[in-house]
Amino acid sequence: MPSGAAIVLLSGGLDSATVLYMARDQGFSLHALSFDYQQRHRIELDRAARLAEHCNAKHTTVRIDLGVFSGSALTDPAIPVPRTHGLGEGIPITYVPARNILFLSYGLALAESNGVHDVFLGVNATDYSGYPDCRPEFIRAYESMANLGLKSAVERQPMRIHAPLMHMTKASIIRAGTALGVDYGLTSSCYDPDSTGRPCGQCDSCGLRARGFAEAGLIDPLRSENN
Amino acid sequence: MPSGAAIVLLSGGLDSATVLYMARDQGFSLHALSFDYQQRHRIELDRAARLAEHCNAKHTTVRIDLGVFSGSALTDPAIPVPRTHGLGEGIPITYVPARNILFLSYGLALAESNGVHDVFLGVNATDYSGYPDCRPEFIRAYESMANLGLKSAVERQPMRIHAPLMHMTKASIIRAGTALGVDYGLTSSCYDPDSTGRPCGQCDSCGLRARGFAEAGLIDPLRSENN
Repeated sequence: MPSGAAIVLLSGGLDSATVLYMARDQGFSLHALSFDYQQRHRIELDRAARLAEHCNAKHTTVRIDLGVFSGSALTDPAIPVPRTHGLGEGIPITYVPARNILFLSYGLALAESNGVHDVFLGVNATDYSGYPDCRPEFIRAYESMANLGLKSAVERQPMRIHAPLMHMTKASIIRAGTALGVDYGLTSSCYDPDSTGRPCGQCDSCGLRARGFAEAGLIDPLRSENN
Repeated sequence: MPSGAAIVLLSGGLDSATVLYMARDQGFSLHALSFDYQQRHRIELDRAARLAEHCNAKHTTVRIDLGVFSGSALTDPAIPVPRTHGLGEGIPITYVPARNILFLSYGLALAESNGVHDVFLGVNATDYSGYPDCRPEFIRAYESMANLGLKSAVERQPMRIHAPLMHMTKASIIRAGTALGVDYGLTSSCYDPDSTGRPCGQCDSCGLRARGFAEAGLIDPLRSENN
């Protein structure tokens, strides 16, 4: 039943995994959407696939050719140069300009071609305050734009963009996800995992995750496995 | 000088070719952006490249993997099934769900990664009244969304989305383009050209183009070459 399905943008990280389970908990049947933009570590896409399978979700991965943006990104001082560890060349493969706008646009395209009217994503204003495309006013504006531009929204049913983590702390996200049965051992948060996916425990993302689990009073299954 | 550059979405058709010259006429240096979504006829992308070269524009072509949307498109009655002439399989390679939203999102990404704040596209409310993403209210909403979501817009300079053809007739577009020096012999409008790019003269797009030239009182260089 199309009206009972939702597209969930799924990176394979802790946040989007939680959103996947939240959407399921709201009664949606799930269609996860991941992006292959030549991530430094393929483990993210592998984890996304496993999470989708675990949730009995359909799973689509879209390849985004980031190479077309790379030359200029390195010369624009406004664009952060990513860590180049593990790269042959200094191509900024982790930075996606207009990232959430582009990802959501694919979400709309997949939704519209499947008769779906709900798109979920795991943006969070608390953690990412420096990124304007993680703010509630951006999400509202995106939804308004979609409802003016999509044939399905104008003719049949409005598109809803759901960002259920928007105002949650990392600890509250982890608590909510744990209550919903998320296996955080299947997620990947580290910026610099080893070849088996084991987190480094040192990077900003590992630190944020560790503080979140500590504040939630829970054990991170990734840490307990690996340490 | 980044503030003097503009991204122009360039399909290789009559409308976007005219927009390319309009942007040049406004003093912008040009960076054309085309999309390779496995179009039925590669002539469009070839024409886009020639137009860009003719205008001394940089030219970027982004490949969009439309295959991920195709399975469901064929089964959704809300999505028009395209003519399948020339196709091995009935994959809807001309239909792009959320088309202008997706194309504009790449436009924003290319703009942001190049320090550019102006994006042009050739949508036209007159010809495409059935498509909500060709309406002025959609373009305004898209621009508002971009200015809330883009780091460059929030921190430095707003993004402007230009749709100069919005309220023009085909004849007035052709007149304006001719005055600006557009070589319409380099454009491709036909839904079903032969292998050399020669237009069929029969399809809706050929008809619209022919009426436009007739009303403008001008000769279509494509027709005069080929007939």
